[in-house]
Amino acid sequence: MRYKLTISYDGTDFHGWQAQQGFRTVQQELEEAIRPLSPHSDPVIIHGSGRTDGGVHANGQVAHMDLDRVMTPTQLRRAVNGRLRCRDTRVLEAEVAAPDFDARRSAHGKEYRYRIWNAEVMDPLQRRYRAHVTKPLNIDSMRKAAAHFIGEKDFCAFCATSSHEIASTVRRIYTLEVDGDGPEVELRVTGNGFLYKMVRSIAGFLISVGIGHESPEAVDEIIESKIRTSRVNSAPPQGLTLWRVWYD
Amino acid sequence: MRYKLTISYDGTDFHGWQAQQGFRTVQQELEEAIRPLSPHSDPVIIHGSGRTDGGVHANGQVAHMDLDRVMTPTQLRRAVNGRLRCRDTRVLEAEVAAPDFDARRSAHGKEYRYRIWNAEVMDPLQRRYRAHVTKPLNIDSMRKAAAHFIGEKDFCAFCATSSHEIASTVRRIYTLEVDGDGPEVELRVTGNGFLYKMVRSIAGFLISVGIGHESPEAVDEIIESKIRTSRVNSAPPQGLTLWRVWYD
Repeated sequence: MRYKLTISYDGTDFHGWQAQQGFRTVQQELEEAIRPLSPHSDPVIIHGSGRTDGGVHANGQVAHMDLDRVMTPTQLRRAVNGRLRCRDTRVLEAEVAAPDFDARRSAHGKEYRYRIWNAEVMDPLQRRYRAHVTKPLNIDSMRKAAAHFIGEKDFCAFCATSSHEIASTVRRIYTLEVDGDGPEVELRVTGNGFLYKMVRSIAGFLISVGIGHESPEAVDEIIESKIRTSRVNSAPPQGLTLWRVWYD
Repeated sequence: MRYKLTISYDGTDFHGWQAQQGFRTVQQELEEAIRPLSPHSDPVIIHGSGRTDGGVHANGQVAHMDLDRVMTPTQLRRAVNGRLRCRDTRVLEAEVAAPDFDARRSAHGKEYRYRIWNAEVMDPLQRRYRAHVTKPLNIDSMRKAAAHFIGEKDFCAFCATSSHEIASTVRRIYTLEVDGDGPEVELRVTGNGFLYKMVRSIAGFLISVGIGHESPEAVDEIIESKIRTSRVNSAPPQGLTLWRVWYD
């Protein structure tokens, strides 16, 4: 039976989503929690909608898995949550999925949120979930810059170089909103897919625009160059949350 | 020179505010950070507006201290923040205070907030700052119960027994609001002072009312009894934040 899981995690103490020998990752923690549910079969593999880096959080990561044991979604959710070693990962929802449902390939879009604390002193209560920017951000300039990212474009200049080996670096950004409320600044971006470090690169550039190091119009020029340069910096991981993934 | 400090901390990894041999406390961390600023004098003592328990947070704790060295408030704030060992405490603001300013005795009122995550599964991203209540809460009943706490009353039945040794257990609650927005429930209480574990006891009782174990009207009967019984439970510390302290 194939199941779809919606998963939330605090990425602070993880080396990201994907299983890696010798590192604590979300995928491994989940697979270890599921192992006792079907002890006589091959270990269950959890297939996520995509990776997240170390320190990056998820509010609604989605994954699929096959289990050769019939459980109701509620039983499955409780069994996994009850076996997870720490409180920093939880299955929010389990559902029975179609046999061909694929968390990555079936995804129609994703939303990420990037959160900033814009004040001279970092708020200790926000430090795990927001990036700290001390210089005042011009929200209007950031909004102008954000508009230049919308649409289907080659985002080669806004991803990490390891993405350059993949077939295409063209992605479509549906929306990119910038909200500022005192020290709390939030970027919300939706798109049909995101390259490696693409959201953090966009966030990093919007911060450069906000503090006046770059102009909003520079976005077009950099996208057209298709070359990642030192003008684009990845914003730190703790500000980023994979908010949701949607399907048909 | 006397200074007033406004301090924020994440209480998760502290054994509360007050200095205690062998335990990590906010007061000690601050005093250690201030020590190098006046190395040839007696150690500086930080006097808080009140204690907070282990696991309880502060958004705006206030303290006063005397320093035999003249620094501008900005210099002092930066010097202390730069010397704090961890990112879970920060001085948000330093100000020069009148020589008779006393963080505890001069306080006119305090606001605490108590936050709950009301859903079957705890959100990992909220686990450090909200209490988990799985049974659905009736916000209307909680509001009705909250109204019974307003005013000047003897809150002996809603504090920890160690408070019984103090001169008076009469306190005035100015406001007590209950907000519910999906799984996020927040209690906001202001008053002229609070007894030991008083806010957590009120929060615990409001939760009992919200899940239907107690009626809103029971508040009066319990207050009048002046006896702490097992009907009143202290809600867990991580939901509580000392929000602000105000002065003339």
